[in-house]
Order: sequence, then C-alpha cells, then structure tokens
Amino acid sequence: MKEIAGTGIGQGVALGTVVRMAERLPEPVDRPSHLDPAREEERARASLSVVAAELQRRGGIAGGQAKDVLEAQALMANDPTLADDIVQRLAQGKTAERAVFEAFAAFRELLEGMGGYLGERAADLDDVSQRVVADLLKVPAPGVPNPGHPFVLVARDLAPADTATLDLDQVLGLVTIDGGPTSHTAILAREKSIVAVVGAAGASELADGDSVIVDAERNLVVADPTAVQAAEARERIAERQRVAAAPVTPGALADGTPVPLLANLGSADGAAEALRLGAEGVGLFRTEFLFLDADRAPSITEQQEQYTRLLTAFAGKKVVVRVLDAGADKPLSFLNAADEENPALGLRGIRALRSSEVILREQLTALAAADAATDAEVWVMAPMIATVEETRYFVALARELGIAVAGVMVETPSAALIADRVLAASDFASIGTNDLTQYTMAADRLLGTVANLQSPWHPAVLKLIAEVGAAGGALGKPVGICGEAAADPLLAVVLVGLGATSLSMSPSALADVRASLARYGLDDARAIAEAALAAEGAAEAKHAAATAAATVGARETAP
Amino acid sequence: MKEIAGTGIGQGVALGTVVRMAERLPEPVDRPSHLDPAREEERARASLSVVAAELQRRGGIAGGQAKDVLEAQALMANDPTLADDIVQRLAQGKTAERAVFEAFAAFRELLEGMGGYLGERAADLDDVSQRVVADLLKVPAPGVPNPGHPFVLVARDLAPADTATLDLDQVLGLVTIDGGPTSHTAILAREKSIVAVVGAAGASELADGDSVIVDAERNLVVADPTAVQAAEARERIAERQRVAAAPVTPGALADGTPVPLLANLGSADGAAEALRLGAEGVGLFRTEFLFLDADRAPSITEQQEQYTRLLTAFAGKKVVVRVLDAGADKPLSFLNAADEENPALGLRGIRALRSSEVILREQLTALAAADAATDAEVWVMAPMIATVEETRYFVALARELGIAVAGVMVETPSAALIADRVLAASDFASIGTNDLTQYTMAADRLLGTVANLQSPWHPAVLKLIAEVGAAGGALGKPVGICGEAAADPLLAVVLVGLGATSLSMSPSALADVRASLARYGLDDARAIAEAALAAEGAAEAKHAAATAAATVGARETAP
Repeated sequence: MKEIAGTGIGQGVALGTVVRMAERLPEPVDRPSHLDPAREEERARASLSVVAAELQRRGGIAGGQAKDVLEAQALMANDPTLADDIVQRLAQGKTAERAVFEAFAAFRELLEGMGGYLGERAADLDDVSQRVVADLLKVPAPGVPNPGHPFVLVARDLAPADTATLDLDQVLGLVTIDGGPTSHTAILAREKSIVAVVGAAGASELADGDSVIVDAERNLVVADPTAVQAAEARERIAERQRVAAAPVTPGALADGTPVPLLANLGSADGAAEALRLGAEGVGLFRTEFLFLDADRAPSITEQQEQYTRLLTAFAGKKVVVRVLDAGADKPLSFLNAADEENPALGLRGIRALRSSEVILREQLTALAAADAATDAEVWVMAPMIATVEETRYFVALARELGIAVAGVMVETPSAALIADRVLAASDFASIGTNDLTQYTMAADRLLGTVANLQSPWHPAVLKLIAEVGAAGGALGKPVGICGEAAADPLLAVVLVGLGATSLSMSPSALADVRASLARYGLDDARAIAEAALAAEGAAEAKHAAATAAATVGARETAP
Repeated sequence: MKEIAGTGIGQGVALGTVVRMAERLPEPVDRPSHLDPAREEERARASLSVVAAELQRRGGIAGGQAKDVLEAQALMANDPTLADDIVQRLAQGKTAERAVFEAFAAFRELLEGMGGYLGERAADLDDVSQRVVADLLKVPAPGVPNPGHPFVLVARDLAPADTATLDLDQVLGLVTIDGGPTSHTAILAREKSIVAVVGAAGASELADGDSVIVDAERNLVVADPTAVQAAEARERIAERQRVAAAPVTPGALADGTPVPLLANLGSADGAAEALRLGAEGVGLFRTEFLFLDADRAPSITEQQEQYTRLLTAFAGKKVVVRVLDAGADKPLSFLNAADEENPALGLRGIRALRSSEVILREQLTALAAADAATDAEVWVMAPMIATVEETRYFVALARELGIAVAGVMVETPSAALIADRVLAASDFASIGTNDLTQYTMAADRLLGTVANLQSPWHPAVLKLIAEVGAAGGALGKPVGICGEAAADPLLAVVLVGLGATSLSMSPSALADVRASLARYGLDDARAIAEAALAAEGAAEAKHAAATAAATVGARETAP
C-alpha cells in the first residue's frame, strides 16, 4: 500500500486497474543505422503491418464514425507509396524509426498542401506515424488507451483532443501527474462527474495493471490498497450511488434555511438534464457560445431566439445571464486585442464590452426582448467588475434597455474588497471563484507549474468571499457563487457559512452538494467557515473545515 | 483656457511650450507612381540630402557620442550604393517613398546579416529611412524632437529607446496620451523627477507651440492658461524649488514620529546620489542587474563583490535586498519558462527561485558573505510571496545561510489578506504597491488600455495595505513600502496612517515626501487614511485625502 497525494476534484471514490496513457514520442534521432538497409526494411514493414492490423481491429470494435477514421488510418499504414518512400530513405543508411518518421512527415506536408478533406486528415498521419515508431521501439503507443474494460486512466495531463476520443463509459477514475484544479482534466471530470485526482506527481510511478483507489475527497491515490481499504472504498462508492438516487428536493440546510441550488450552463442544450437533476434555476448562463467561431457578433434576432429557448425551459425560475465574457482564454477577433502580454490582466469582460458598447447594448436588448416573451425571471450580470464606477455603468445600461435586475460578478480582489460599495450600486453579486482565486493568489488558473497555489480553499480567498457575504447580509442583497468551488460539497457548506445565499454548479454536482448541505444548520456552517478562515493555508483550511464539520455533530439525513 | 485630465506623476508643476513627438510612419503602400521615374528620383535625392544635412547639423550641436551616431546616420543618407538601389526600384515604377523604404529595408537586412558592430547599426538605418520618407511626405519626422530650447514634450507614449535619446535638461514636462502610472514614461518621470501627466487622452489636440501648464498634483494639463493661472504655476514652481533646497533631515511626522525614508536602487551606482538626497538606507535593492543579459547566474564571488560595494556605501545603515525577481516582464532564459500565457501570473519571483534553488542559495550565500565583510545592516526579502508556506521556506533558507533578518514582499492580494499569518512567520514585510495594485485590480501594470484601473489610491488597494499595517502593528514588526506609491507626497501620509513604518522610493522623490510628512502628526495621518479608505474609487480617495489633509489643519513647516 502506498499513498500518493494530489488534488481531488469533487468528492468521489473509485477503485480499479491502472491504464497509463503513453506520452508523445520524441523525434527519432537522425543517425546512421548499425543494421543493413534490408534488415531495417524488414523491421519497418513488420511494424507497419502490426499497426495496420491493430487499427483495423479497433475500427471493427468501435463502429460508427470512429470506424471510418480508424480504417482510413489502417490504409495509411498499408500505403505502398509511403512504403517505397521509407525504403528509399533506408537506402541512405537511416534507421527504420527515422525513415518512418521522415516519410510520414513528408506525406503529411503533401496532404496539407492539398487542403480540404485531405488536408484535414494530415493530423491522423501523425498518429499512425507515432504508432509505427512506438512499435519499432517496443514502447506503448501514445494517445488515449482503449483496453476494452473499465479502467483508471493515469496520464501526465489530458489535452482537449485526448478527452474527445476518450470512451468515458470505460473510465472509472482519472489521475493526472500535472495539472491543477482548473485544468482541462479537472473541468472534464466535474462536467462528466468522473472521479479524479489531479497534480499527483507521485503517480508517475504507477504502472499498467496496478490496483488503485482514486480518493478525490481525501486528495489522494492509494496504490496497491489493502483488503480493508478496498472494502471501505466499495462501501463509499455504494453510498454515493444512494445519494445520487435520492429524491430531488430544493437545496436547504438541516435547519430549513433555503439555499437554492442552480445550474451553470453554457448553452440551452443542457437545460433538460439540469432540470432532471433538480436545478432550481440557472445561476450562470454563459453566452460565449453565441459569439465564438464567429467573425462578428450575432444579430439581436439570432441572440433573442437562443435566449428565448433557454428561458422557456426555465419558466417560473430564475436565470442569471452573464453578458459576453470575452478576452483572456476566450478572445474574440472582433472584440479583443491580440497582442496583450497578460490577457488575463487585460481588456477583458466588462472592459472589452465597454470599449465596443454596441455589442453590449445589442445583447441586453435581445435579453430584454426574450425576458418579455417568456415567464422566466431574468437577471443579468457583468464579468470582471473591479470598481464601483463600472458597476454603476452596467446597472444603468441594463435598466435603460429594459432589464429589471442587474448585478456584478465578483472575480477581482478589488470588487470583493469594496463589496459594500459595489453591492450598494447593484442588485446582487455572484462570485466567480475560479478567477477570484487566480487573481488573489496571482497564479494563472490554467498553468500547471503554479497549480499548487490555485485552491479556492485558501483562507485569503475565503476572506474575500466573507467580505462579499457580509456586505450582502448588511444590505439584504443576494450573493451567489458560480465558480467551481460551489461544486465541492464541503466547501459549499463553508460558502454558505460565509454568507452565500445560493450556489450554482455543473448539474452533475447537484446531488452531492444537496446531500452535504442537508447535514448542517446555519450555525454549524458558520462555525465550519470560521475554522477554515483561521487556517494557515488551503490544505489546512480544508482539514480544519472537515474537523469542525465532524465536531459540530453532523445530523445525517436518512439515506 | 482648456483643462485636459490625466494621471499626474508626483506633485510637480511645469509651465512651457508644447513640442509634439511625431508618431512612427506607416509602411508606404506599394502602388505605381503617377510621376515618371526621373521626377521621383529628383524627389528622393532632394529628401536624402535634406536629411543628411539635418543629421550633420544636429551632430555638430550634440557633441560626444551622440555626434558620432548622428554623423554615421548622415553618411547612410548620403550612401551612393543605397541611392543606386533606390533608382533601380524607381525604374520599376515605384513611388519615391516606397523605393526609399524598400532600399533601406534591404540594406538593413544586409547589415544585420554581418552581425557585430555593423549589425548593431541596423536600427539606425530605420531612423534615417523614416526621416527621409517623412521629408518626402512633408510630415514631421518621427522620434524624439530637439527644438534647441526647453519644452513640454507631448507624445502618444515614450518607448525606452526614445527616452534614451531625450535631452532631459531641455524637458520641462512630459504629457502622454496613452500610458498609465506604471508606464515607462511614468517610471522615467519619477526617476528623473520630471513633471509628468500620463494617459491624458485629450492631449492629442495639443499642437507645437501651444502654451501649457503640466499640473501633476491636480492630474491635469491646462492648455492656453490665463495670466492668473500662469502666475500661480510660477509661484508653485518656486515653492517646490525651496522644498528641494531644504536641509536634509531624517524622515519624521510633525509630532516627531520617525518614518525612515529609504532609497530604491537598481545597482550600487546610485548610492552616492541617494545619500546626498538624504536616504537613510536602502528600502529596496533590486538585484536583477546582476542577472540580466547573462546566459547563466553570476558566480558567488561576482555577486559578493557587487553587494560589498553597495553595503560599504551604506555603512551603519539598513539595506533591504530583494532576491532575484525574475519572470513576468523580466524573464531570464536560465530560470523562466518562455511560453507562459500570462507571465505576470506565472512561475515568477520566489516560485521560480524555488524551482531553481541553487540560484537562490548562491545569492543568499553571497549576501551573507558581503554582510559579514561590511558594517551595513542587511535584511533580505523574497518577491511574490503568496502563502505562509512560502514564507517559512524562504525565512528558513535565509537563516540557514547566515542572514539574520528575513522578510517578504507583499505583492499578491493573498499575502496582504493573511498578513497576520505571514508576518508571524517572518521578520518584516515590504509592500510592493505596483504589483499589489496590478493583481488587486486585475489590470496589467504595463497595459495602456487598462491604465484607468492602475491607481494605488484605489480603496481596495489601501484596504490591503491597512491589513498589512494592522498585522505589523499587532506583532510589532516593521512594514515598509517600496512601490512607487511611497513617492507620492500625499499618498505617503496615507500609507503611514495605514501603518507603514518606513517608506522607500526613487531618491529624487525624497525631498517632497520629507516635506509632506513633516506637515502632519500620526493622528492626522490616520484621519487622512480613514477618509481615503472610505471613498468609492481612486480619484475620490485622493480627493478625500486632500480634503481631510486641509481640514486637519496642516501644520506647515517653515520654508
């Protein structure tokens, strides 16, 4: 048994067998082969055949579109022109590895030059090339594995392209060596409710076939667990399944204090699933999807259609819409400057909208029209507010264009520090914990090397949230949380203790948070929050909260 | 009379005549000329001669090294090979502007290929090319003007290269249209004690020869002032000269509370001047100069020599040395990753040193040796501290390597918010207001488009400073300020009111700050700080402080 520390995403536990994702191979060195060309040719042809057969086999299993892609790749590995090119390069005394690499690269360049469909296939060639070279080197092929049975995936980190080809039904848990709580892996894990531990440096020692427990709640991976540990993990997995199957009720503390549980949505498509999981409304509706991949802003009519679709699904419920948050990791060519040194500290959010006010006016106009046409309760909020002056600007504009409830996102330390003055000028605040953590700790939320600094559990971040909560309480104005912190069941209790009046999250997290809130009264939540606030760092705060939660005598709800 | 708003740097006033810095010309369009080639050749040769003669004339006036550079540029304008190349391009039907541009660009490429001294001259060719094209277009030549008399320079913004060729003795004041309080122009203005107003968008309407008052204290430029305004400006200029000539005494409030006034230094070279201006020690010694332009860290011996040189100059005085602060706008190839999306939020400061600990150990070892060999009192501090854990790490390492006093820079909101816990683990804190403002407002300190958010007067920033001041007071530990905020005479009073126990600044600011502190007691300073803290925004805080300062009945020191 060995424990490996990392950062857990959510509260889940998984038990399974490790499959490692092999890393991308380095470019084979261009050195003379010590074998003769005929022998190298034999090696190359053998590996090409093996890879072609394997791709054909996997295509047969996969079916659908994946079958077509895999079979096309098999044809590439069998392509006679490519084989001829490899043989010619071998005649110059190159190694099979190098010749394969060069021939595929040349072919790739050719395909790219043709453009269109063929050009788009160029990247597939790389994958085939890597597989052939890996077979020659007798190392595992890079890329997402598919062992044909459920497994725990261990990777350095997952790129968006990897996750697209990952068969999530087979993944019991995810462990990454790099990456922090806001990495793509973490976001995927939250969205799909996959048990994950990220940034577990010690996981580099795990090998294919190892038995592991992935324990997100305790921030660790247990390699080679004892029978007792495995049994305990199985019991916790069963308990989580019971929670997920529990009846959907409105969010509330044990003493009856209501804490509306809302959904974070990125388009109207997720509305039905969010409602099924018990979302009492939408706490963060991101509107970027309407603007991305476009070279201009969509028309008022186009926007109004989309907003109406969403609002119709949430008739009678609150829907908080964030106006376009462009810039930083989501730049738009028609809105953002391309050459900022630090885009996260640049002209983003409300700053960018203000400098292109027509886009903001059109969006608010479309929202007001959709609001008038439906029965949902529309609130709008502006991203990246840092000053009272910006707050006044946005609220006045929203009212001018016919929206009754207008508020701000609290993502900058500044907005939290002067929350009393910001809330006095707006109708509500919603705290975006991801960006707030990034700026408070001065650590890029997408940068692995500073991942150790990116926890919303840090007492500095909690203190800022407490400032906003206190201001909201004093002024009687709602304070929501819409960052990923709200999806952590224990942190959710802390946030309520700090003054949050609603929590918004990925719908998949609703059941766990609902169950967690139901265990504590408001006084308990405040005591747990106090314990976390007084801690020295993030890990200590999480530990202090867990200890306080245990000592306030959790009133377990019946399963 | 017309008032133009901007951001004043420091407290000065200047009165003078506008000279505008012309902006860089766009690349001439490559379109067929409507003149015949012979006529275009005439135009090109005439402009080349005019520019050569002007450069020759200015070289004669300039003398010294500048003379050599200008005369070399005159030779370039007269170069017959270049003229031949231009004529050949004109034969293809190009305009004189385009032919000159292309010929110079080709010559530039040739020179760059040669490397060495000739390669370094390549940039000078660009300047000549711009001058010739400007003469052809009958527009002012870009670059720094030299009208031969004192003037107020109005520019979009100044690049470091511009300021290097600026004759500061002739510059009465600086006005920039872009740029914020932490732009290069602002830094230069503080360093050289030049009266400046930056980010004055309305200044784009000012023309050569306009009479203006540059009023940094009031954050404005007065165009075409009345006789009364001009007389008042002259009186204020005379008053500042009296302050600058006042005897140098230790920094203190009117009630005798000592507030040591220290110097920010970037190398040992400025030591004598800092002492002459009354620096009571060094509050921030930046050590980057030893590492920049190097492809490896300097040896312990090399470092020790430099530190000893500095410490010898400040025998018997306190010298606070900041260990290497690499990253963000000061990347070092041997220490920092090149591909960070947001370097200001990346692996910089203590984070980078920790990942290359040998560099930190060698620097602390060299400092300890220099400390032992001299009579100065050495304190060391680490940049970019965000957690208690980092604080403990740095303080323990400094002690292990023989340095008695070790502290932290407070630049992240996090360090300020948990200042009680950070100061409990360290000997002192020093607040870097530039970075603290940048992170608190989430606004890049070097980005003009968000300059309106970059004021250390913002109540959110002041609140964080107050947190550190309160923690220092409760624990009896020193809290210094070493950001540019300390150089603002009124803000300096606020900072002391918030709990700062020493102020460090560019030596040129010492006299103004000394005079300002001497006007208020500690209770006054606290009342002024309270007024600023309660304000809604930065401008309101500055105004509230000024009002409070007037009402506490400033006890003017005798002139």
